[in-house]
Amino acid sequence: MQWINFDKTESYKKLQEIAKAPVDVKTAMAGESGAERVAKYKVPMSNGLVYSYAAKQVDDTLLDALQGFADEAQLTDKYAALYNGEIINTGEKRRVLHQLCRSQLGDDVVIDGENKRDFYVAQQKRAGEFAKKVHAGEIVNENGEKYTTAVQIGIGGSDLGPRALYLALENWAKVNGTLKMEAKFISNVDPDDASAVLAGTDLAHALFIVVSKSGTTLETLTNEMFVKDALEKAGLDPSKHMLAVTSATSPLANNPAYLDSFYMDDFIGGRYSSSSCVGGAILSLAFGPEIFDRIMAGAAAEDALAKNPDIRKNPALLDALIGVYERNFLGYGITAVLPYSQALIRFPAHLQQLDMESNGKSVNRFGEPVDYVTGPVIFGEPGTNGQHSFYQLLHQGTDIVPIQFLGFKNNQMENDVIIEGSTSQQKLSANVAAQIMAFACGKDDENPNKYFAGGRPSSIIVGDKVTPESLGAILAHFENKVMFQGFAWNINSFDQEGVQLGKLLAKKVLAKNTDGALTSYSELLSIF
Amino acid sequence: MQWINFDKTESYKKLQEIAKAPVDVKTAMAGESGAERVAKYKVPMSNGLVYSYAAKQVDDTLLDALQGFADEAQLTDKYAALYNGEIINTGEKRRVLHQLCRSQLGDDVVIDGENKRDFYVAQQKRAGEFAKKVHAGEIVNENGEKYTTAVQIGIGGSDLGPRALYLALENWAKVNGTLKMEAKFISNVDPDDASAVLAGTDLAHALFIVVSKSGTTLETLTNEMFVKDALEKAGLDPSKHMLAVTSATSPLANNPAYLDSFYMDDFIGGRYSSSSCVGGAILSLAFGPEIFDRIMAGAAAEDALAKNPDIRKNPALLDALIGVYERNFLGYGITAVLPYSQALIRFPAHLQQLDMESNGKSVNRFGEPVDYVTGPVIFGEPGTNGQHSFYQLLHQGTDIVPIQFLGFKNNQMENDVIIEGSTSQQKLSANVAAQIMAFACGKDDENPNKYFAGGRPSSIIVGDKVTPESLGAILAHFENKVMFQGFAWNINSFDQEGVQLGKLLAKKVLAKNTDGALTSYSELLSIF
Repeated sequence: MQWINFDKTESYKKLQEIAKAPVDVKTAMAGESGAERVAKYKVPMSNGLVYSYAAKQVDDTLLDALQGFADEAQLTDKYAALYNGEIINTGEKRRVLHQLCRSQLGDDVVIDGENKRDFYVAQQKRAGEFAKKVHAGEIVNENGEKYTTAVQIGIGGSDLGPRALYLALENWAKVNGTLKMEAKFISNVDPDDASAVLAGTDLAHALFIVVSKSGTTLETLTNEMFVKDALEKAGLDPSKHMLAVTSATSPLANNPAYLDSFYMDDFIGGRYSSSSCVGGAILSLAFGPEIFDRIMAGAAAEDALAKNPDIRKNPALLDALIGVYERNFLGYGITAVLPYSQALIRFPAHLQQLDMESNGKSVNRFGEPVDYVTGPVIFGEPGTNGQHSFYQLLHQGTDIVPIQFLGFKNNQMENDVIIEGSTSQQKLSANVAAQIMAFACGKDDENPNKYFAGGRPSSIIVGDKVTPESLGAILAHFENKVMFQGFAWNINSFDQEGVQLGKLLAKKVLAKNTDGALTSYSELLSIF
Repeated sequence: MQWINFDKTESYKKLQEIAKAPVDVKTAMAGESGAERVAKYKVPMSNGLVYSYAAKQVDDTLLDALQGFADEAQLTDKYAALYNGEIINTGEKRRVLHQLCRSQLGDDVVIDGENKRDFYVAQQKRAGEFAKKVHAGEIVNENGEKYTTAVQIGIGGSDLGPRALYLALENWAKVNGTLKMEAKFISNVDPDDASAVLAGTDLAHALFIVVSKSGTTLETLTNEMFVKDALEKAGLDPSKHMLAVTSATSPLANNPAYLDSFYMDDFIGGRYSSSSCVGGAILSLAFGPEIFDRIMAGAAAEDALAKNPDIRKNPALLDALIGVYERNFLGYGITAVLPYSQALIRFPAHLQQLDMESNGKSVNRFGEPVDYVTGPVIFGEPGTNGQHSFYQLLHQGTDIVPIQFLGFKNNQMENDVIIEGSTSQQKLSANVAAQIMAFACGKDDENPNKYFAGGRPSSIIVGDKVTPESLGAILAHFENKVMFQGFAWNINSFDQEGVQLGKLLAKKVLAKNTDGALTSYSELLSIF
């Protein structure tokens, strides 16, 4: 396998050439031509989802060139190398094995006599059985009473992914009668975060899950102490209210301070860890392990599609390549993620971490500076809310911001109302379709304030409903998209050295080590 | 007064020249030089806040040039014209009077015999008195019981600003014993939004505030019907549970369907409307009118500072001008807003609307296309959460993203814990100071993965605590910043034609699908 910089590929020049006269979405999406594109430029995902890219600046010539690049850069071979356990995280010399949690892809990876797939699956099974015993009242608090609330204490990947998934299914589970426990989350070192969550929590019936792979994350340990302090003040025994999700070698592991601990390891990065016990423990407590298994099954089905070397049949790869083309040749530096589903309210925040932390890099996998731009900035809020907010800039601003829509035919809560001849869900669906067309085709108007240039590209993932399966598929789609983009840019999507310096300096500040080069700190701090 | 395009000013060329050799933040912020800059490049705001811009790419030469531009473009004159009631919203031929709600700035504006300041103040007084009667049990539900929850039904500016302000003070009010009623918000047309809020609300003791200036916002009317339906199903009388905030001429005004209605008018844009009854009704119900008055007093004090033509003494103007320099000459297209305060969790979403909807425009105030870029994309999440997420890209990505930090000496909830010799609040403060230095100065390292180029600019607003006064000041600071940038770019920051097309197309889609045949995305699109 060859790992070469994007701009050193043959395909790079070809793509550069094509980008000199990019597809005009305004013309392409108008009238009959638009209808044809909608019928043609879509690819089935798993679990009834469809990825539609008709309103992107693509045509067959570009797709052929992107296919050429995918082949030249061996993108699906690299994907296979990853899930088969090669050391893909070159910076930290680690494997990247989160997909083994989903149990299906790839070869067995055996390290020091331990089959990693079996290890991850066994840990999740333990977490699931623990959850079942909690639900059945077999594991109870110091007064023999059932736990009713699960609170995750974690930050970054130990917070954003699991929180996004919980919120995505909370109401679905309520309607389906499968919400076993309410879940809450404490992440910020700002003590008001923990205070506010604790103030609204029945401590005597709460289970706290401390999530830190290393067992040394400062925010998380601080919040753990904060919670223990509160438990003790309430006359409770912290060891009857605490679980740990960590690595088997961390100080939290196998520690009598916790009711139990569940393990992952260094081959599962934080932002990819929702499929491990990091997501599995809290989501099994909240919904039951069967629901978590269904999320994983959805993800695994989507993972399988990502193996296909034909980009027209591989939605994650295609999405990735269109994004690379937009980023490197059309000059778009931002992607807006706009789910038309209230359930996905925090999904953009998860994708923000997943994408920006993975691909916000300036050196290639060998540590050499790259001569091209890499990961874009990701932001988003649910529609239709955003329509009454920042869409103004997306429609009429001076920069073009490509959009990733998500939309569903049905809402989750089976409660709706007909106003002016349509349900709220129908209004929601109509709005997302209308937005795609408005961004693409714009509108002429004699009043220049009401003129829309159009030509603003978007894609959409459409599904029937946010369910465990479709949610898992969407999770996996974006993980795979981001990994493919990392391969395309020849960067390491699996380390995050960029977050270390701030931590280091914060420690120095706290140690009052403000001499020498740190003079400006003490000044800065003196403002405080 | 002269309204000319930015690139037609004398100052434009001067700034362009300066930007050829911009200040190197890495060198400037190191050691003694950094300490001097921190001491020098700061400006007091109101209510104990300080705006520190030492880590921006500024020096005295640039500041002089920006001052020259501010003078040439008459920016503070335009600000005065605005609050004195000239027709500044040229697109819609309207005045821009939200600052009169804060009661202090400017001349009296009398229209059709009505003094607008008196009108706004009187409406807020009515809303405040209504709230007091609710708190006192003088206005009660159909069973003579007190209301306990206030639910705002609104979208865009009727949601984001009031929600951000409520969340910013909710915990502060709990600690101070001034939380009179819990507030909730329904915004999205996705029926699951309303369903979820209603499922967690004691309907019999809830007051719903329908907020729509025109009284015709589809999402809001739909959600109102949704709520009325739920109230009726619960055997309650909707007219005993509903208030309206609207314009005096809207269908919602003076309507027996509501317990009472409070008015604003066309001179208060949605994203600037938190100071009107749009924010005043819900916040007075939640916290009492005295607290809302304190927010307004904080905002008014900050407004007064924005009158100063000396940019070094006018934090909003200075912040605006540095932003324009970064956007137009340094090529930065994005600003990250990163509050180190859990209380400000939704403040970035409010700023996203305020900034992007105001200044995401491609034509000047006369409708002519501009030849320069305008408003940037705004996004953000609270620190330290973001540090474990997207900061990787901010530190080591290929694009530079300027940062607007906010930090406070004290948290709100007066509950903290000492771990490793420091409180959580001290860790929080240390982290934001450390981040400023890390972004500015970077770090050399033999390992290229651990190399930080530095030179990434940021500013910070520092305060003692998030209180009603400081919150009001921050609200006003950003409103004024955005308006100054609009003047600098010679655009109209007060219309939002870019959101109309989507609405129009959605109606068309719905009109052709009244029989509920929204079965697939491709069908939906083929209609066009």
